Amino acid sequence: MAGLLLRGARLPDGQSANLAIRGGRIDAIGAELSAATDAETIDARGCLVLPGLVDGHAHLDKTLWGTPWHPHQAGPTLRERIDHERRVLSALALSPATQSARLVRHMVARGTTHVRTHVDVGPQVGLDHLHGVQRMRDAHRDWIDVQIVAFPQSGVMIQPDVLDLLDQAVLDGAEAIGGIDPIGIDGNLHGQLDAIFAIAMRRGCAIDIHLHDRGEAGALTIEKIAERTAVLGLRGRVSISHAFCLGMLEPARLEQMIALLLEHDIAIMSHAPAGGIPFPPLRLLAERGVRLFTGSDGVRDTWSPLNSGDMLERAFLLAYCSGWRRDAEIELALRMATHGGAQVMGLRDYGVAVGSVADLLLVPAETAAEAVAAHPLPRLVLKRGRIVAREGRSLLPPLH
Amino acid sequence: MAGLLLRGARLPDGQSANLAIRGGRIDAIGAELSAATDAETIDARGCLVLPGLVDGHAHLDKTLWGTPWHPHQAGPTLRERIDHERRVLSALALSPATQSARLVRHMVARGTTHVRTHVDVGPQVGLDHLHGVQRMRDAHRDWIDVQIVAFPQSGVMIQPDVLDLLDQAVLDGAEAIGGIDPIGIDGNLHGQLDAIFAIAMRRGCAIDIHLHDRGEAGALTIEKIAERTAVLGLRGRVSISHAFCLGMLEPARLEQMIALLLEHDIAIMSHAPAGGIPFPPLRLLAERGVRLFTGSDGVRDTWSPLNSGDMLERAFLLAYCSGWRRDAEIELALRMATHGGAQVMGLRDYGVAVGSVADLLLVPAETAAEAVAAHPLPRLVLKRGRIVAREGRSLLPPLH
Repeated sequence: MAGLLLRGARLPDGQSANLAIRGGRIDAIGAELSAATDAETIDARGCLVLPGLVDGHAHLDKTLWGTPWHPHQAGPTLRERIDHERRVLSALALSPATQSARLVRHMVARGTTHVRTHVDVGPQVGLDHLHGVQRMRDAHRDWIDVQIVAFPQSGVMIQPDVLDLLDQAVLDGAEAIGGIDPIGIDGNLHGQLDAIFAIAMRRGCAIDIHLHDRGEAGALTIEKIAERTAVLGLRGRVSISHAFCLGMLEPARLEQMIALLLEHDIAIMSHAPAGGIPFPPLRLLAERGVRLFTGSDGVRDTWSPLNSGDMLERAFLLAYCSGWRRDAEIELALRMATHGGAQVMGLRDYGVAVGSVADLLLVPAETAAEAVAAHPLPRLVLKRGRIVAREGRSLLPPLH
Repeated sequence: MAGLLLRGARLPDGQSANLAIRGGRIDAIGAELSAATDAETIDARGCLVLPGLVDGHAHLDKTLWGTPWHPHQAGPTLRERIDHERRVLSALALSPATQSARLVRHMVARGTTHVRTHVDVGPQVGLDHLHGVQRMRDAHRDWIDVQIVAFPQSGVMIQPDVLDLLDQAVLDGAEAIGGIDPIGIDGNLHGQLDAIFAIAMRRGCAIDIHLHDRGEAGALTIEKIAERTAVLGLRGRVSISHAFCLGMLEPARLEQMIALLLEHDIAIMSHAPAGGIPFPPLRLLAERGVRLFTGSDGVRDTWSPLNSGDMLERAFLLAYCSGWRRDAEIELALRMATHGGAQVMGLRDYGVAVGSVADLLLVPAETAAEAVAAHPLPRLVLKRGRIVAREGRSLLPPLH
């Protein structure tokens, strides 16, 4: 592959520099670089270079992206939304491969270079969503890296065959196993966690558990997750997504939770949920050293029409909904959408540095804080050194 | 002025239609229209036609838009932020005429056709901001309509000469008089309200009062505003901006407030403030019939770097922060950013209808809810029938 020279880019520290890219990696960064004879030169016009955005929590298989507008009709409870989704998706008979491919085009256009997606596994859908998303992943591997969590959306212990399906999903290639509200959905805290952790041990995969249960139900679940993480030696391999409960505990109980998260190196995913749903005190957690990441969650699906799949806008929402105004705070939001997710996904050689993989995003902004505040649309996106999106449009061929 | 034919646009009811525009107004809407011989034809490509966006609460005079990135440094209290802003603006020595012109370019590009701006009036700045924004307004009257509220940012009764300045501001052309936290800033509830209402009576202008005071301090202020509105016969002429207190009252007290707002036809401006600040229960207020509108508030200024001046994104934030998912809810957010503001600004012949002024926005969306959810950037903007922005860029000449 021929090289690329990004001329006149702005580094995160504000310095202007040229970036030489070769073999899919950042070969050099400096003021005086000139293009190799076979290198294409791109005038970065002072745009800020950021590492590719990492969407650490998506549901690619269930988006309605690219289909006619679907007015939201689900009831307000988690259980109603799960059941309603099953009915709508079954009626629409959409293909998870096609739907995930549609959404991935949008994500690539907005600068996402890596996505961890929770893919439904359960008695109604079997492994169809998994295999569909895997086909999409194979077809798009030059454009975006996709990591799959086998996700028991409808519950684990209260549904038949889910454990076998989850185990098979991991055997079939899912990199992580998910869980969902062991108390609220399954009514079986120890049962679900024992089963999930057993599969993770047997197959050597990571764990990422959806935890919407609030208050003390959520806190007890975190305690039990931490216990198993310790006993099974899975330190650093476990994530908890949402963890709304951390936004509603009294300070002493919250400190107990923080101590557990730190001791067992459990990461927390939050996307600043809509409408007054409590969410973890992110700045406090970050100050204490808890690993944080973020994601789009469901994009234009039966859960909500509002999420967009734009991780710069997501960082903006994290900052906005947290009441952050200072650069250091806004940079934390961006870090959750970049390095935080990269760490959880186990990416190597990620970031804007010599030797790193050239998964990069260029945006017209002076500082990282401005990139978040303005989340401007004109974006140049590189995947392993190749341009995959320009001016807010992916260069992927249209699907139909 | 030659006419314009928008061919193949989507009306809010989903029907496809052509819109004929002549003399700055919508001359006809129908499936079978053809262009007059002198009319330019534009292929709307199925884009949704919306009325021009109305920014009902901005601070054009104080934005840092177009200047180097300014890291946020103000303290957390209202008083600290007011004092900090004064110091920063004084040190930067920016021109309110230039700054407001910079921001207006952005607003026009995003589809705002009308803006109500609160302009600082006070002992340090005198009427300089007012006169600067007025110069900008005169120079931009073919591009955007600007309504000015004379705004005593630093207080009314605790500062010298403010009442004289406010009175002079209205004489000089401000269409409305503002106020700010009579209890929290002035410590003089009756004094500030009496003075503000006296000027409004004397000069025949509207009233729009900033009310950040929380809980019962805010509720008492609303009671006293309502009393004066009744006594002075100003029904329908008074607005309250922010009214955070309405988001924190117990239900019976909230119902008292709603009854007062309805009886005296007082409008409420909310922009869904960041970071857990309480804000009015908008859906409930709308269901009861309270008039609601919204605005950008301060865009990239010393108060916060995060607001953007994009009223479709603002409608999205209203919906997101309110936890709205249904079309009817999301449409309420858009109504606050269009008809709600138009009503408060007293606009005549506003909206997508034959005979209306052709202040219009076309966006690639199927429904109003989708326009809010996606707040897509490619926008075609018409001001009195003339194209003023395309593809997210205003056609205004660059400032420098």
